[in-house]
Parts: sequence; structure tokens; C-alpha cells
Amino acid sequence: MKEPDATGEQRMITTQEIARRVGGRLYGSGEIEIEGVAALDRAQPRQITFIRDTARIGAWRESRASAALASHEVSAECLESGKVLIGVEDVDSALIEVLHLFAPAVDRPEPGVDETAVVGAGVELGKRVAVGAGCRIGPRVRIGGGTILHPGVTVMAGVTIGSDCELYPGVVIREGCVLCDRVMIHPNAVIGADGFGYHCASDGGGLVKVPHIGIVRLGDDVEIGAGTCVDRAKFGATEVGEGTKIDNLCQIGHNCRIGRGCVFSGQVGLAGSVVVEDGVVMGGKVAVRDHVRIGAGVKLAACSAVMDDIPAGATWAGYPAQDSRVALREHAAIRKLPELVRNIQRQRKADRAERDPQPR
Amino acid sequence: MKEPDATGEQRMITTQEIARRVGGRLYGSGEIEIEGVAALDRAQPRQITFIRDTARIGAWRESRASAALASHEVSAECLESGKVLIGVEDVDSALIEVLHLFAPAVDRPEPGVDETAVVGAGVELGKRVAVGAGCRIGPRVRIGGGTILHPGVTVMAGVTIGSDCELYPGVVIREGCVLCDRVMIHPNAVIGADGFGYHCASDGGGLVKVPHIGIVRLGDDVEIGAGTCVDRAKFGATEVGEGTKIDNLCQIGHNCRIGRGCVFSGQVGLAGSVVVEDGVVMGGKVAVRDHVRIGAGVKLAACSAVMDDIPAGATWAGYPAQDSRVALREHAAIRKLPELVRNIQRQRKADRAERDPQPR
Amino acid sequence: MKEPDATGEQRMITTQEIARRVGGRLYGSGEIEIEGVAALDRAQPRQITFIRDTARIGAWRESRASAALASHEVSAECLESGKVLIGVEDVDSALIEVLHLFAPAVDRPEPGVDETAVVGAGVELGKRVAVGAGCRIGPRVRIGGGTILHPGVTVMAGVTIGSDCELYPGVVIREGCVLCDRVMIHPNAVIGADGFGYHCASDGGGLVKVPHIGIVRLGDDVEIGAGTCVDRAKFGATEVGEGTKIDNLCQIGHNCRIGRGCVFSGQVGLAGSVVVEDGVVMGGKVAVRDHVRIGAGVKLAACSAVMDDIPAGATWAGYPAQDSRVALREHAAIRKLPELVRNIQRQRKADRAERDPQPR
Repeated sequence: MKEPDATGEQRMITTQEIARRVGGRLYGSGEIEIEGVAALDRAQPRQITFIRDTARIGAWRESRASAALASHEVSAECLESGKVLIGVEDVDSALIEVLHLFAPAVDRPEPGVDETAVVGAGVELGKRVAVGAGCRIGPRVRIGGGTILHPGVTVMAGVTIGSDCELYPGVVIREGCVLCDRVMIHPNAVIGADGFGYHCASDGGGLVKVPHIGIVRLGDDVEIGAGTCVDRAKFGATEVGEGTKIDNLCQIGHNCRIGRGCVFSGQVGLAGSVVVEDGVVMGGKVAVRDHVRIGAGVKLAACSAVMDDIPAGATWAGYPAQDSRVALREHAAIRKLPELVRNIQRQRKADRAERDPQPR
Repeated sequence: MKEPDATGEQRMITTQEIARRVGGRLYGSGEIEIEGVAALDRAQPRQITFIRDTARIGAWRESRASAALASHEVSAECLESGKVLIGVEDVDSALIEVLHLFAPAVDRPEPGVDETAVVGAGVELGKRVAVGAGCRIGPRVRIGGGTILHPGVTVMAGVTIGSDCELYPGVVIREGCVLCDRVMIHPNAVIGADGFGYHCASDGGGLVKVPHIGIVRLGDDVEIGAGTCVDRAKFGATEVGEGTKIDNLCQIGHNCRIGRGCVFSGQVGLAGSVVVEDGVVMGGKVAVRDHVRIGAGVKLAACSAVMDDIPAGATWAGYPAQDSRVALREHAAIRKLPELVRNIQRQRKADRAERDPQPR
Repeated sequence: MKEPDATGEQRMITTQEIARRVGGRLYGSGEIEIEGVAALDRAQPRQITFIRDTARIGAWRESRASAALASHEVSAECLESGKVLIGVEDVDSALIEVLHLFAPAVDRPEPGVDETAVVGAGVELGKRVAVGAGCRIGPRVRIGGGTILHPGVTVMAGVTIGSDCELYPGVVIREGCVLCDRVMIHPNAVIGADGFGYHCASDGGGLVKVPHIGIVRLGDDVEIGAGTCVDRAKFGATEVGEGTKIDNLCQIGHNCRIGRGCVFSGQVGLAGSVVVEDGVVMGGKVAVRDHVRIGAGVKLAACSAVMDDIPAGATWAGYPAQDSRVALREHAAIRKLPELVRNIQRQRKADRAERDPQPR
């Protein structure tokens, strides 16, 4: 099955050229023309694949791929007639290079402001900024050079966006928020919606909305997934640190302060005022209670529900979350529990029978 | 309470006409005019309701509805003066027919391209395609006959959409994705956003984004819920098989391969490269770890967290998910655990007292 | 760090004016000019902060803030030279007043219909309704006075929207839905998408879509979070009662009936036909099974998975959810379980050794 190409052009790159680009050593012909990338078991002729470890050598022998990236060790071991190997230091890095080679051109609006876009008063646009069809840019917005707003993006008053950012269709950035440089925001994400805060009216007349007059600040190289929401602060800023990557459909509550280089998988939810230090990794669907502090380098298993502060470097799991070794031990004990209960009940019956023998 | 009608017209259908349309047997007058559908306990005169089983006969006697769909057995049993029964083989199928009879016309754009839509170069539109106000269609997109793009849909370069599809407002389809025929996508869903993949730079310089050059392919009759995200593949395609229905706010990671006829409830999350075979049913909020394989016909209880492969036909539940009978047994044992712990502590104290009697 | 101001203007308000507005008693100078609000530990000179209880008096002494709101008791106790205190009855209510004083003007479209908006036939707009750029209003929509549609909102045929509502960019309201007065809907939320219902075709030919001909009805003062989806009813209405607040990325299934004054945190999911009585509070990520009834005033801990009806006034937690005291007791018992299992195994070994002494 050949995938359609978004650009309409079919790219062809020789094995020699690929080896040159990844700085790899070529085993076999440099003349083979490659037109795509695929996994070992799904690759077709004229596609390149990759071999991460020696356990996959059997799959490589059966693969229909014309070429593979492999570590130097693997490459030396598993030459196959008619197939090409490109030996590299780091297979994953080389694969990223190759994916770039075959990446279809992204469909980006041209620099300039599309005639169907609506731009407010006092907006400042840097060099080569692209504002796509149907975008709405509020007053006093400033956008740095090279930034791309795909069609249908809404940027409200007073927002500051740095250079070389990319905002996909349907993204909404509310008033006053700040995006630093090279921030990427995927479709339909919402930055700076009101935080979720109410105060019970003293007269019992229901809930009074707490105004959220703060902003969201996204550091350099932050990436925000499709449909993800990062709420604005009550005051000050909800902060996402440099280089942090947040997957799709996550909820980041008002006044959270997330450090640098964190990675949050899909559907993670942080309540308000959570502090996450640098380099924290969260699996999918992790939940964090409000005002909790998570130390640097913490790892959280998918679906963990965090109710307490976590010390730096820890690995936690479970509901409620705790040290993952303890959580595992408890899970193992629960596995034995039904039998344990049965045994204890049997034993108790036997003890009772011994104590109070019934006449037959 | 009479619900407003989206079309502004009030539809009136006689009981005789309804009986004819559902192929049912009429008990009582065929002249009653019906103008809507409601549940037994909420129905008003001039509304039709339905009786799924004999346990509901009492509710039927008290219901204010003018008519009801019921099985032939029930119909024969519970005639009420002045009320009409329509006896049918399958109440649910008949109800679907009746809902169609009373369905207000959907608000769809007219065939043709709205003058406020922006259409790229080389776009091919089939017969009677409707492109609503403010849609953005990228270059080289192909759309099959009868497909409807509601207002505010974004379709990026090189996308292929089949016939008789319906895309609701705010939907974003990224480059190169493929939708087969009769695909329905609800508002603000995102198809083909970048997968969530990073590689740690060997120089320690942070996370390097892995390019995702693959696509998403949605089979015939697939339905995707509001706000749901299906990520594009690293290479090849993230696949959703024919007839699979995915509810709102689900997250389908890059390179997942979902079979035919699956049903996923709201807020389900699949990490990357999950394989789901045909006919799998997932309750709400199920989470599945990356690279897991779920066999055909598996059923997963709501909130299950799947960490391991699941054999075909199994029913699993829990966190972590396991065979639901085992999960139930463990839950039952946990219910008894606090008492068990108390008893054991008491017993131990008694044993100790017996072994080491204290002088009074 | 001074936050940018979305309006471009710097507001300055004297301590005397603030005291007057919150009806508080001024301790110290009334001439200090305040330009923003911040937490005790992050406040800068010329900012006002707040002191909720005496435990924070130390932090107040160290704070760089120029002024603070505090209870009358605290105010009397902790005067600091050069700093201003404003004594109030209720700190949180006063803080809300102060946040309003410093709130930057929201970026709202002007009353009237933007020339890029598309408005269908038979639409009725009240006084001072604002319809922003790129909005799409279907035929026969009625919108009450003072309601604001931010840019890029889609309102489909026959929808009724009350007075003084505010719909943020990217919101989609499907056919026939009803919003009462002062409803606020945050960006990219979806109201009235089809419910998730299918019927297995009797001929085994797959899943037949159940038409959802009902609507969604949102009561007065309802607030719906960013990205949240409320599905339309199969028939009748999915209802959200007066004053209920729903956070971001929640999923409310078809035919749910939610009472008045409820508060649902982020990523909550309700399956179909759930009944929630008045004043129910749900933590983040709570899941509720279909057809469950939750009594008035119930509180659900974050991540609870509700499978059964809950009596009014109860506090539940856990997976599956149960009375939170029982859930806590079980969690405490599970904490002890690994040791218990070890002890029992040791004991059993000892018993066996005693019964069956092995020759050495």
C-alpha cells in the first residue's frame, strides 16, 4: 500500500544520498532509489526501514524493504544480497533525519496577511509572518518574524507571540497571553481561557465567578497538543517552561507553573496551582490535585492520580499515586488477596469446628 | 414541555402512518396525530413513546403519551382505552424509524462552494459537494460526490475525502489524510495532527521532535466524535477500520491500527502503535498503553487501564486491567479487607496474651 | 515580573479607593498607588496581595507587596511600617472585587454584525447583540439582547440564545439547542453534537446510527468550559440546570439531566441518561456510568468512577466509587496488605513446621 503524498510529488532519494545525509556507512549499492519509510514488517520494495537491535535481524531477512538503517554492529552482521544497509551510531537520530528527507511539504500559508483575515488596530507583525485565511487578530497583538498562523486561528487583544512559532487551524489565544519563540500549537488548542474558580456568595445566592485577570506564558520551544487547554491565571501567569511538550486533550488549570523540558502524554489533567519542576514525565491520563508540587525529574505512570507532593527524582504510580515500587507490591498482594480471604475463612471454620465439636 | 423544532415547522404524523412506516400492527385508532417522541414518564399527549418490556406496563398505564411502540406480546396485553399501541418485532429498530420520521432537517449548506470559502489550487470536487461558509480547502484536495463540509471546516493539502461524508464545523483535517465514504466527523475533531514523539538529543540539548510524515486513514462509515483527536503516523498510516464509531474527546495516538466495527465511548485514550482488532468495545475513559494488541471482540469496562495484550473475546476491567471476573473477585476481597485486618490484629493480640499472660 | 496588560493601558488605583470599593477599613496610607494583584510570595511593590489566615503573617512580613486584603482580626495584628492593610469581613469576596478593579477589558466585538459574518434567513437579534468576524448564524436563530458572539462562533439552525450570553471563539451550537440568559461558553466547546448511540442491525450488517432528534438546554448562568462537549438528546433535551458550572474538556452524554448549582471540574465524563440532582460537586476526571442517579449535594472526589446510584448528601470516592470513609478504610488496609501477606505466609510455614517436624 503506497501512501498518498500530500504534496502530489513523489520524492526519490538514492541510498548513497541517504547515507551521506545521516553520516552513515553504506553496505551495498548506493544506486537504489528509495521513496519512503516503513516498519520492518510493513515495508515494501523501494522503502527504507530500520533495525533497532539484533533481535530484529530475522524480521529484516524477511522484510521486503530495499534498505535499512542499523547500528554499525548490526550492519556488519546482517548483510543481505540485494538489500542495502546504512550503518549509523544512533538509529533513532538517523531515522529522524530520514523522516525529514521524505517529509511532504507542510501546507503553510504564504507570508503576508490573507485577504480574508481580520486584523485589529495597532497590530505589529514581524518579517515574513504568515496570517492564513479567516484568522482573527485582535488589537495590539505583536507577532515575531517567521511565525505562521494557519487558517482560522484566533488571537485576541494584546497577545505577544515570538518568532518562528506555528499555530494550527482553530487555535484560540485569549487576551494578553505570551508565547515565546518557536512555540508550536496544534489544532483547536485553547490558550488562556478563564480559570475555573467560583466563590460561594455569602448570601447563599449561588456561585460568584472569580475574575481571572492573569495570563498564560509559554516558553521557547513549547509544544501544545490538539484540543489541549491551558487556563489563564487568576493573577500573574500560568507558566509552561522552555522546551516542555504537552500532548493532545490535556487540561492545565489556572496558575500552574510547569518547568522546563517536561513531557506530558495525552489527556493529562492538572488542577489549579500545581507546581511541576523541570524534566517531569507524565504518562497518559495522569491527574494531579490542586496546589501539589512535583519535584524535578519525577516520572508518573499512566493514569496515576497524584494527591500529594512528590520528591524530586521519584517514580510514582497508582490511585492514589505513591512510589511505584510500593504500588507494585500492593498490586501483587491484591492478586493474592481472594485466595488469602478464602484460606482464612476455611481456617477459621476449622478452628471453630475443633473448639466446639458438634455431635454427629 | 414541547421542544422547539429546529426547522420551525411542526411535523404531524398519524398513528396509522407510523404503523405503516415501521411495518407494525395497529391496536386502537389510526387517526391520532402524533407530533413527537418521548420517554414513558415524560411523554405528553400527542407524543409517541415505547415499551421495551412487560416491567414497564405500569408506567405505560400512567403515561400521558397518546401512543406507544411495543413488542407484539406487550401490545396484546396492555391495550388502554384512548391510547394507541403499535406492535412490532423489534422495538429499538422501530424507534429508530420513528425518530427519523420526526427528525428535524439538519442545517446543511447547499451544494456548491460558499463565496466566503477559500479553495486552493488543483482541488477536485465531486457532484453535489457542499462547501460551507468560511471553509478552507488546501491545494490538491479531492472530495467525492455528495460530501458536505459544514461552515468553518479546514481541510489541508492533499487530503482525499470520499463520497457522502459529513464534516461538522471546526473540524480540521491535516495534510494527506484519507477519509473513505460516508465518514461523519463531529465538530472540532482533529484528524492528522502530529504524533507525540521526541528523541533525546545525544548532546543533552533537550528533546528533538520526530517528524510525523504518515497520515490518518478512516475507513468507510467511520464516525468520529466532537473534539476527538486522531494523530497522524510517524510513517505509513494511523488506521481506523470500516464502521468503527469513536465518541467525543477521545485520543488516538500515532500509528494505532483500529479494526472494523469497534465502538469506543467518550474520553478513551490510546497511546501510540496500539493494535485493536475488529469488533472491540471500550467503555468511557479506557486507557491503553503503547504497542499493546487487543484481540477481536474484546470488551473493556469503563476506566480500564490496559497495560498488556488481551486475547480475543475477553472481557477485561480494572486498573491495571485484567479479566473482569478476576477483577470482580479482587474487588469483593478488598471489600472484606478492613475487617480481615482488624480480625487478624485482634487474633494476634489474643495469641500474644495467651502466650505471655500478664499478671493482673 | 510585570505582566503585560492586554489593553495596553496601565491602571493605577489608590489604596483608599480600593478600601472604599471593597467596603474595608484602611490601616496605613490611602495614597499608595496600586497597579496589580499577586500572591504573597510573588508580589512586587505597587501590588496588592491578600492574607487568608494568621498562619500567613510571617509571609506577609517578608512580602514585597505594598498592600494586602486581610480579615479584620489579621489586620489589627500585623501592621507593618510602610505597608497598607485593608481589613474586610470576607477576604475572598473582597479579592474578587479587587480582581474586577484590575481586570483588563475583555476583547469583545462591537455590537452589530461583523461584515465577514454570515447570517441565515429569519434570524432575530436583540438589542446590542455583537456578532464577531467570521461567525456563522444559521436560519431562524434567535439571540437575546446584549449577547456577544466572539469571532468564529457557529450557531446552527433554530437555536435560541438568551440575553447577555457570551460565546467564545470556535464554539459550535448545533440545531435547535436552547441557551437561557447569561450563559457563558468558552472556546471550542461543542453544544448539541449527536449522542453516541447505535443499534446492532438485526441482519448482522453492522451498527445502525440512532437519530438524535432532541436538543441541549442550558439554564440561566450556566458556564461551559473550553473544549467541553454536551451531546444532544435522542429525544427531549439534555439539560444543564441554572447556575451549573462545567470546566474544560468534560463530556456530557445524551439525555443527561444535570440540576442547578452543580460544579464539575475538568475532564469529567458522564455517559448517557445520567441524572445529577442540584448542588453536586465533582472533582476532575470523575466518570459516571449511564442511567445512574446522583442525589442532591453529593460530593465526588477526583477520579471517582461511579457505577451505582448515590444517595443525597453523600461523599464518595474510588474506583468503583463508594462512600469515601469506606474507600479510605480500604486504602488504609491495602497499605498494610503486603506485610499482612508476608506475615501470614511466614506463620503458615511455622505452623507446618510445628505440625510436621522434619528430621534434621
